[in-house]
Amino acid sequence: MSLEQIEKVYQRLARLSHLGSIVGWDQAVNLSKEGAQKRAEATAELSVLQTEIITDPKLKEYFEEVDPSKLSENQASHFRELKKSWENATVLSPEFVKTKSMAQSECHEAWKSLRAENNWKDFAPLLKKVFDLTKEEAQMRSEVSGLSLYDSLLDLYEPSGRSEDVTKVFNGVKEFLPGLIQEILEKQKSEDVIYPVGPFPTESQKSLGLDVMKILGFNFDRGRLDVSHHPFCGGVPTDVRLTTRYSEDDFTESLMGVIHETGHACYEQGLPSEQWGDFPVGSARSMGIHESQSLLFEMQLGRGPAFLKAIAPLMEKYFKNDKTPANFFELENLKKFYTRVKPDYIRVNADEVTYPAHVILRYEIEKDLLEGKITVDDLPELWDVKMQEYLGISTKDNFKDGVMQDVHWTWGAIGYFPTYTLGAMNAAQIRVALEKGVGGTDQYVEKGDFTKINSWLKENIWSKASFMSIDELMKSATGEVLDPKYFESHLRSRYLNT
Amino acid sequence: MSLEQIEKVYQRLARLSHLGSIVGWDQAVNLSKEGAQKRAEATAELSVLQTEIITDPKLKEYFEEVDPSKLSENQASHFRELKKSWENATVLSPEFVKTKSMAQSECHEAWKSLRAENNWKDFAPLLKKVFDLTKEEAQMRSEVSGLSLYDSLLDLYEPSGRSEDVTKVFNGVKEFLPGLIQEILEKQKSEDVIYPVGPFPTESQKSLGLDVMKILGFNFDRGRLDVSHHPFCGGVPTDVRLTTRYSEDDFTESLMGVIHETGHACYEQGLPSEQWGDFPVGSARSMGIHESQSLLFEMQLGRGPAFLKAIAPLMEKYFKNDKTPANFFELENLKKFYTRVKPDYIRVNADEVTYPAHVILRYEIEKDLLEGKITVDDLPELWDVKMQEYLGISTKDNFKDGVMQDVHWTWGAIGYFPTYTLGAMNAAQIRVALEKGVGGTDQYVEKGDFTKINSWLKENIWSKASFMSIDELMKSATGEVLDPKYFESHLRSRYLNT
Repeated sequence: MSLEQIEKVYQRLARLSHLGSIVGWDQAVNLSKEGAQKRAEATAELSVLQTEIITDPKLKEYFEEVDPSKLSENQASHFRELKKSWENATVLSPEFVKTKSMAQSECHEAWKSLRAENNWKDFAPLLKKVFDLTKEEAQMRSEVSGLSLYDSLLDLYEPSGRSEDVTKVFNGVKEFLPGLIQEILEKQKSEDVIYPVGPFPTESQKSLGLDVMKILGFNFDRGRLDVSHHPFCGGVPTDVRLTTRYSEDDFTESLMGVIHETGHACYEQGLPSEQWGDFPVGSARSMGIHESQSLLFEMQLGRGPAFLKAIAPLMEKYFKNDKTPANFFELENLKKFYTRVKPDYIRVNADEVTYPAHVILRYEIEKDLLEGKITVDDLPELWDVKMQEYLGISTKDNFKDGVMQDVHWTWGAIGYFPTYTLGAMNAAQIRVALEKGVGGTDQYVEKGDFTKINSWLKENIWSKASFMSIDELMKSATGEVLDPKYFESHLRSRYLNT
Repeated sequence: MSLEQIEKVYQRLARLSHLGSIVGWDQAVNLSKEGAQKRAEATAELSVLQTEIITDPKLKEYFEEVDPSKLSENQASHFRELKKSWENATVLSPEFVKTKSMAQSECHEAWKSLRAENNWKDFAPLLKKVFDLTKEEAQMRSEVSGLSLYDSLLDLYEPSGRSEDVTKVFNGVKEFLPGLIQEILEKQKSEDVIYPVGPFPTESQKSLGLDVMKILGFNFDRGRLDVSHHPFCGGVPTDVRLTTRYSEDDFTESLMGVIHETGHACYEQGLPSEQWGDFPVGSARSMGIHESQSLLFEMQLGRGPAFLKAIAPLMEKYFKNDKTPANFFELENLKKFYTRVKPDYIRVNADEVTYPAHVILRYEIEKDLLEGKITVDDLPELWDVKMQEYLGISTKDNFKDGVMQDVHWTWGAIGYFPTYTLGAMNAAQIRVALEKGVGGTDQYVEKGDFTKINSWLKENIWSKASFMSIDELMKSATGEVLDPKYFESHLRSRYLNT
């Protein structure tokens, strides 16, 4: 039977991708300086091999031979996801993939130093090349999928996500966000917050990170924690490789980073890997759902009073020192400290409230650019105008903290940014359903017991993998498709007590 | 041109094997408990893929099309090694490889618990199966190579090595060794040796290990040190992954282990990887030459007075404690401590003098077994008889410290053991040439400066990779082919001052 033949090919692909994931993690965590060249050759060879396997004409025949009407419901989902993954992977010619990949590498490598030099002039032409090629890619994808240019890229990260809906949702946010930020800033002006003072030894931060991962339900028989320059959640679902980085001046970055990545990790560990791990239907639904799990842990629960209460004694145990006032560790202070809002330049450092402004700005710009309404040369000015409008700060002539700050565009990842804020909104909505589902999370969270919470998440999100569409998944888990009102009321309730 | 087509295939194989090495290292160092099953599937898939690539009929055609007489000297060596590697890899049918691999896995897994239980009865039939299949393998290899059964396996580890020569050399050793051991034991009886008393913190052992690796010239831009249950030297020449294990009671195991593996590592790092790294001619010559480099570092130099003098202050810095007498760290004591001889059961713990007895015993047994002169059922008794003869100790009914102690046979690695002692002999001979080459090593070693030593080794051994045969390499580096007299005189001089 052809489906079985397709499965055999995908099983091989999954195993090669397992090797790629572990070697990719190794590259970020362990690679020796002079090992980079040979490693790049080895991983490039793996990509070529994977492309050869997925573009084998026989696979096309197998797909044509399957009659989806004869499949059971689960098998139909399985086949739908196989076919979509195969179509996405085979639209572009290997030559085009190579050309684009080279332009991206060139842009990405140059970006590392040009950003530090605030050198927009030399960066712009490289970025233009990547955008042009990404537009070509979008055109090719669009011809096959029938989607608009932008949607054909968005669809790679957020399957069935449509910019029409995203724009509607983001416009809703734009209506309330600038005013909300002002209200919060006004309220927080009069608050006294006590700050911790380092150094905070790396070993203590690591111990706290491991303790917190245990509380959050990370399964250490299926994964581990290491250090890398850019924290991420990698590896494979049966052996998830979390990373963080430690700064002795500031323990919050690694603490919150670990909580965030543990959210991603628990999703991966909770996927139905045993039965479906080799197939697309067994993997995470979308970037926006993935981010909802990391933000549910980091923002919804992690910065809430119950969790801070649970970990306050641990923080005190590991970080009490002569310089940090003892009342830093008091719950009332931690609550204020972990919900401080401050409009600033850098997205990755942004708080939960100002973060969507960073995302909406990028979404609007990349969409207009792809649709030819603006050019790369317009970016710095547009960035400045929108930053002033959304967050009241200017990035004029400050390219490195403005248009040059992110890595995504250098990689040609257009259509990725909106998934961050979709994730935050999904998280707020899932949180409400979770509260109902377990009869209130605080009673468990403050005891550091995530058993019931994770059971609910596993049942309603993690184990569902990609069997349903995003809308179906949200409906099944929360009773309705994404509605941004939950995010707004979360912000109002946490930051304004309204 | 066909050679170029062969090279292209081998380049792909080298890149896949790079991935396999890194993932293999990861398996020993980082693998999560529940990650084993999927990892095994992924690495098995890689093996299947490698077999598919190397057994592609086109590759056979390319080999037939090359006219070796038209190649330059270097190209001819290159082609010779390519062809040999291809022949070795394609003699066995994929089905046979799979059958044998399954028998080995079964035997190996059972061995882990049966050894602990001293259960020879249940182990014997599994071992017999592996030996039978290995004999089948030897027959198939022998038909193609024209070599004897044993030599067709020995050749895999020690290319062009012949058991006729090995037997001659080992018989020479057997003539002097038992007597020499008795003389040394007699001499050491009256020596007072002071022993260190732990605990020795893991962190201190690690720091000493790293310091010692630096002294020995390990290039940390091309590799790193980690922990695994069974220490090894893995990874790839541009990113060598050393491992060790720490026991807080005893720092010598990890210290000497690190020195040993650093010898292997420096050989790998010194291979001509940039130009030849993807091809067999660019890899290490043989297991016996590899072992010569680890033993040159660990035994020849590492336990010599100059090196002990160089690291004594480091040992004292890291390991000085209330329980270890201060004069443990004095050079005269360290010399005695690190050259203590004691006939014992376990090969891997054996000192330099008794070690060859363990190897010769195994060599004689595995060769007779392969040639059908004895059966698996004879092994325990034969083991006991030979242990009594060579080392004066009995292993009667003590299977776990006798015939069941090693992992090699469970893996079907017959023909491997002799390379350990060939390595020790090569090391002694290379040491003599090295002394001449640099005008005496002590002056450098006692200052902890291996620059000149490693330059000589790189020029004469490491950079030569597999361009010459073992005999040619030994001749070119030392002026003559392997002569066991150097090993004997090393032992007499170090242990009896004669």
